[in-house]
Amino acid sequence: MPGNTFGSAFRITTYGESHGTAVGVVVDGCPAGLELGEEDIQRELDRRRPAQSVVTTQRAEKDEVKILSGVFEGRTTGMPIAMLVYNKDFDSSPYLELKNKPRPNHADFTYAVKYGHWDWRGGGRASGRETVGRVTAGAIAKKLLAKLGIEILGHAKEIHGIGVGEIAIEDIRKNAEKNIVRCADLKIAKKMEEEILKAKKEGDSVGGVVELIALNVPVGLGEPVFDKLDADISKALMSIGAVKGVEIGAGFEAAKKKGSENNDAFYVEKGRVKTLTNNSGGVLGGISNGMPIVVRAAVKPTSSIAKEQKTVDLEKIQNATISIKGLHDPCIVPRVLPVCEAMLALVLADHAIRAGFINPAKL
Amino acid sequence: MPGNTFGSAFRITTYGESHGTAVGVVVDGCPAGLELGEEDIQRELDRRRPAQSVVTTQRAEKDEVKILSGVFEGRTTGMPIAMLVYNKDFDSSPYLELKNKPRPNHADFTYAVKYGHWDWRGGGRASGRETVGRVTAGAIAKKLLAKLGIEILGHAKEIHGIGVGEIAIEDIRKNAEKNIVRCADLKIAKKMEEEILKAKKEGDSVGGVVELIALNVPVGLGEPVFDKLDADISKALMSIGAVKGVEIGAGFEAAKKKGSENNDAFYVEKGRVKTLTNNSGGVLGGISNGMPIVVRAAVKPTSSIAKEQKTVDLEKIQNATISIKGLHDPCIVPRVLPVCEAMLALVLADHAIRAGFINPAKL
Amino acid sequence: MPGNTFGSAFRITTYGESHGTAVGVVVDGCPAGLELGEEDIQRELDRRRPAQSVVTTQRAEKDEVKILSGVFEGRTTGMPIAMLVYNKDFDSSPYLELKNKPRPNHADFTYAVKYGHWDWRGGGRASGRETVGRVTAGAIAKKLLAKLGIEILGHAKEIHGIGVGEIAIEDIRKNAEKNIVRCADLKIAKKMEEEILKAKKEGDSVGGVVELIALNVPVGLGEPVFDKLDADISKALMSIGAVKGVEIGAGFEAAKKKGSENNDAFYVEKGRVKTLTNNSGGVLGGISNGMPIVVRAAVKPTSSIAKEQKTVDLEKIQNATISIKGLHDPCIVPRVLPVCEAMLALVLADHAIRAGFINPAKL
Amino acid sequence: MPGNTFGSAFRITTYGESHGTAVGVVVDGCPAGLELGEEDIQRELDRRRPAQSVVTTQRAEKDEVKILSGVFEGRTTGMPIAMLVYNKDFDSSPYLELKNKPRPNHADFTYAVKYGHWDWRGGGRASGRETVGRVTAGAIAKKLLAKLGIEILGHAKEIHGIGVGEIAIEDIRKNAEKNIVRCADLKIAKKMEEEILKAKKEGDSVGGVVELIALNVPVGLGEPVFDKLDADISKALMSIGAVKGVEIGAGFEAAKKKGSENNDAFYVEKGRVKTLTNNSGGVLGGISNGMPIVVRAAVKPTSSIAKEQKTVDLEKIQNATISIKGLHDPCIVPRVLPVCEAMLALVLADHAIRAGFINPAKL
Repeated sequence: MPGNTFGSAFRITTYGESHGTAVGVVVDGCPAGLELGEEDIQRELDRRRPAQSVVTTQRAEKDEVKILSGVFEGRTTGMPIAMLVYNKDFDSSPYLELKNKPRPNHADFTYAVKYGHWDWRGGGRASGRETVGRVTAGAIAKKLLAKLGIEILGHAKEIHGIGVGEIAIEDIRKNAEKNIVRCADLKIAKKMEEEILKAKKEGDSVGGVVELIALNVPVGLGEPVFDKLDADISKALMSIGAVKGVEIGAGFEAAKKKGSENNDAFYVEKGRVKTLTNNSGGVLGGISNGMPIVVRAAVKPTSSIAKEQKTVDLEKIQNATISIKGLHDPCIVPRVLPVCEAMLALVLADHAIRAGFINPAKL
Repeated sequence: MPGNTFGSAFRITTYGESHGTAVGVVVDGCPAGLELGEEDIQRELDRRRPAQSVVTTQRAEKDEVKILSGVFEGRTTGMPIAMLVYNKDFDSSPYLELKNKPRPNHADFTYAVKYGHWDWRGGGRASGRETVGRVTAGAIAKKLLAKLGIEILGHAKEIHGIGVGEIAIEDIRKNAEKNIVRCADLKIAKKMEEEILKAKKEGDSVGGVVELIALNVPVGLGEPVFDKLDADISKALMSIGAVKGVEIGAGFEAAKKKGSENNDAFYVEKGRVKTLTNNSGGVLGGISNGMPIVVRAAVKPTSSIAKEQKTVDLEKIQNATISIKGLHDPCIVPRVLPVCEAMLALVLADHAIRAGFINPAKL
Repeated sequence: MPGNTFGSAFRITTYGESHGTAVGVVVDGCPAGLELGEEDIQRELDRRRPAQSVVTTQRAEKDEVKILSGVFEGRTTGMPIAMLVYNKDFDSSPYLELKNKPRPNHADFTYAVKYGHWDWRGGGRASGRETVGRVTAGAIAKKLLAKLGIEILGHAKEIHGIGVGEIAIEDIRKNAEKNIVRCADLKIAKKMEEEILKAKKEGDSVGGVVELIALNVPVGLGEPVFDKLDADISKALMSIGAVKGVEIGAGFEAAKKKGSENNDAFYVEKGRVKTLTNNSGGVLGGISNGMPIVVRAAVKPTSSIAKEQKTVDLEKIQNATISIKGLHDPCIVPRVLPVCEAMLALVLADHAIRAGFINPAKL
Repeated sequence: MPGNTFGSAFRITTYGESHGTAVGVVVDGCPAGLELGEEDIQRELDRRRPAQSVVTTQRAEKDEVKILSGVFEGRTTGMPIAMLVYNKDFDSSPYLELKNKPRPNHADFTYAVKYGHWDWRGGGRASGRETVGRVTAGAIAKKLLAKLGIEILGHAKEIHGIGVGEIAIEDIRKNAEKNIVRCADLKIAKKMEEEILKAKKEGDSVGGVVELIALNVPVGLGEPVFDKLDADISKALMSIGAVKGVEIGAGFEAAKKKGSENNDAFYVEKGRVKTLTNNSGGVLGGISNGMPIVVRAAVKPTSSIAKEQKTVDLEKIQNATISIKGLHDPCIVPRVLPVCEAMLALVLADHAIRAGFINPAKL
């Protein structure tokens, strides 16, 4: 079974290579009756667009989305929604020499062995450009979730070791989109930016941690025992190229705690059951418990760096060196953040339909 | 869509409640011709069995597995393999009072709201007992992977903050199964054991970190872009009740590194392409790269503790307290470890068939 | 991908061989709160049971079903419902000689080639005994559909060319279960019975046509463009070993008609839209239209006959002859009818959940 | 779960409405290394194109296909292959009046009720135009199957009761594409053509039967017990809007036979096991047996006819009449035939990969 389809009730299929004709997605399972226009998608795409600031790649793609089907008179029809973005600005020449010299921590080597023949230009399908389809589909998922009052927030929790501590929801809402690293604390944002620019200057890159929060998720999303909500979120985030770790609630910190410290005590507030703490991150037994869903993804430093690196020549089967040219992000955190949000939105929309919170045919 | 089926080419469906008649699994997609007997399954089940040491629950279940179908004259037939374990030793009386008082960090609350009517005895389907089916199926996956030379190792990397550093494969093979906490360093194992017994005495519990290593995985397992090998592993592990975080290779540490530090340089050794380091954890672009697959799972402290805890009364909708009786593990790490191995084995077997390394019909 | 799972929202996985330990099924996706006992299942199983009359095989199986999970205090819990029937009465000795001499129109030959090693006793997994799992699961589907007022009827429309014409729903309800061939016309039933007994005497067998009718199906079941309701029904019925053709509404007769004859005119009756005729069989564009769903399945004559037949010796690769001993049905129509009903019920239950008519978590 | 994806190992997702921007398909699971160009697709699309003869609709669509991804330097890359056809020639004005007057035997009524809001122009998604995606994908499946030597043939077996009897494979190869009705007997083809033109003159339409034959299918395709090869073929064909019945081998005729007549005797020819007759249609126990796969689909007369028909006004909920204008096929058999071939090819390609006959990653 191939792997370019995600979700079961709200299901997306993506396609397209970095330097091919287009990248796109087909969304199947969006109920009829949702107001939807290209501007709804474009807003989210603009957040992941290259060349949006000095800390991102300068590839000059406008990423203009076109809706080809499934929307009529401004509303979805329940039919598959096909959307695409034509690739406009790319230069494949720097990749010619890389064809036989796999870039460290890139997929060149594994694609070469697995597929034999593959589109190596700009990383092909393994490029971060693939995530255009995710964000495009995620924009619809977000609109659908908004009908249930669900809101998804994301912010740069940490970049190259510089992190923010406890942060108020209000600060994320207010600040995260107001600075180029998408940090919810404006002072730390400045430090993060400097750290990225320092790495850029060195021909290097840095990683970080993205935190996502979903608010107003009702009790009941998630299908035990394998399609637990946190299990599906985990897969969703780990399927993003740059992500190397995922945790929910207390996450790896939970491993260091005692049960009496980690357990979230229940209490009643205005007739609603809540928990005093949220170490479980809003999921109990794989099912949302009504508290905010809090997840974090570890983002590795961008693999494409200008610094010379050791590699091999796959034709001659001998050691070699490369220095990667082209346009690259010195830190992918600010641009991968909307991708992470999109993936979380896709999982929640899928599970909201699966659990019966959204009618699958029409709103 | 319900959630009790896992995998696509090597697919399992589990069932059963903690205090119900039986727990079991149907494995569909195992090729014909694999030698298989109940003893192969029993060996793995005995590793997750309760009452195996002083650090585990004392529920006296022998967990004897029965194969009902799909095996003939000692070999698999390509047909579904149904296996079950009848529940023998359980006492549901302590759970009667818990029915309306959800245990903190357990699924009682979410099941009550989502399903209305559910089997609350012993945690029902949300009990760790559910994992019998996983280990049962995982034993077959391991045998199948052995045909490709793939070996899966697991060890307790950390318990309540007490951890082992870099550890040799040979030490894991030699030591991990020789001590009751399954630590590969016998001295640290002793400390971990003491830590668990201390928590037990306090009526409390502790968490930890499990590390898994898969050796000899060929280049090519994993289906971009969503069914990446690490994405599926991540889901597999996160679907285990006690797991709150998953990371591969450098994981969350990668977030703190520079690209030049995190990238794994390629080199040629005896005509084979390898990497000098393994920060990627054996997966590049979602596809195995021939290096060991290294993943870690954060395991939370057991939620069931004797200490009094705050909760709510769901009938009266008011605050309440509980103290959980019954037989519980003061630390689930030693027993969840074979479950984690099973889940990794299931993902690898699934992807080995999906990628064409194992013929789906017959060996 | 293996093939022993059917359905997506209401999903069943079956297992078991004719002469193995047991045959069974796991039903995943039945909402919580449905009253269910073993007697509900047993009633349907008794309808497909062998040795129920002179026109069926005399294998003395009582087919006693056991529910292992997913039901608590008489109601479903939303968790997988595992059910099994232990095999009691079988004699594998007649099959020993058949092992290398594939029975014409049986699966012996294809299983031998595809799987190499398989359980050939009594036809193994390819035996009609496999359908125990279908009927077991179908019984639950029927109970679930009854909550929507949906009723499923089946009757023997034709046996060895002896057929009934237009038949009233009331006659099916009244007569079909009152005679051993399950014909809705008691006079024709007698003729059908004689025809079967004649074939039996000759050491031969006969085929027939089963007709199924689903009443009170609401408008809206079916997911275009591939998972159309009629497409899924077609697969469901064709997956039964003995079925060689499926048609809906006018079916193959439609091919001989003009559009003006075949089109079903709409009209309004008491504020509800209906059609004057039902050539479409209750499905338009793959979606139920509120009219009765009418489908027919062509059932081949039982392949196992006593008469000598030409075959080959697979070891010696040369021509050979066989005469099949053992207990066989001279006509499978009466016993395959409840299986067909079960498959239709499974498809309708699946689509009722998929289309939002039944809440997936709880009734 | 939505329904616009078909297949599991070779998986297609289609989208697009009749009068929308484009119709298209994403093919996921085609191995890398297959030579593929737009001309390969165009050839098949031209066979289903409107306005190809006097017996087809005159809508002037050129149906020019564009490949957007998954093909590089003339060969597939193992990545999803996105293809689309922009809609050029359509006039939605005649449909405005039909919006509230559902056309008999069309999906207007069921879409209106199920989705509330839908694209009713030209039948929208329920139009035969949807099948462009199927034929587009089927062209790739055919090329892939050719690598195994598998050939798929189709011919018009019957039109409005005028049928051809036993027909030689050679005649199908030679004649079927040489006449506008795609009949393998040129004399009967003439009569069929006249019959269609007569109906056209009357403002009416006629139906027919399509026969498909797959040659050189190896033994072993098909996954018991639900994903039997014939079950999946049945679904594939029944999912086509105009198809009302499907049969394999002797099909409905088998229902009238005795076992001794219907059973296909095995014999050995040049070391290969064959059958003397082919009543089973090349499938035993759901698995291909090496004989030609022979299936037939009943095609209803086109629902859109000029003659006045009874219908209802959905707004006023009262009886009404309509006469359908626009461009329609007086008989859809000639154009649905390539669609049927495509669906058969898709099922065979899917099962060839699933059964291990084609490597899923690369040729």
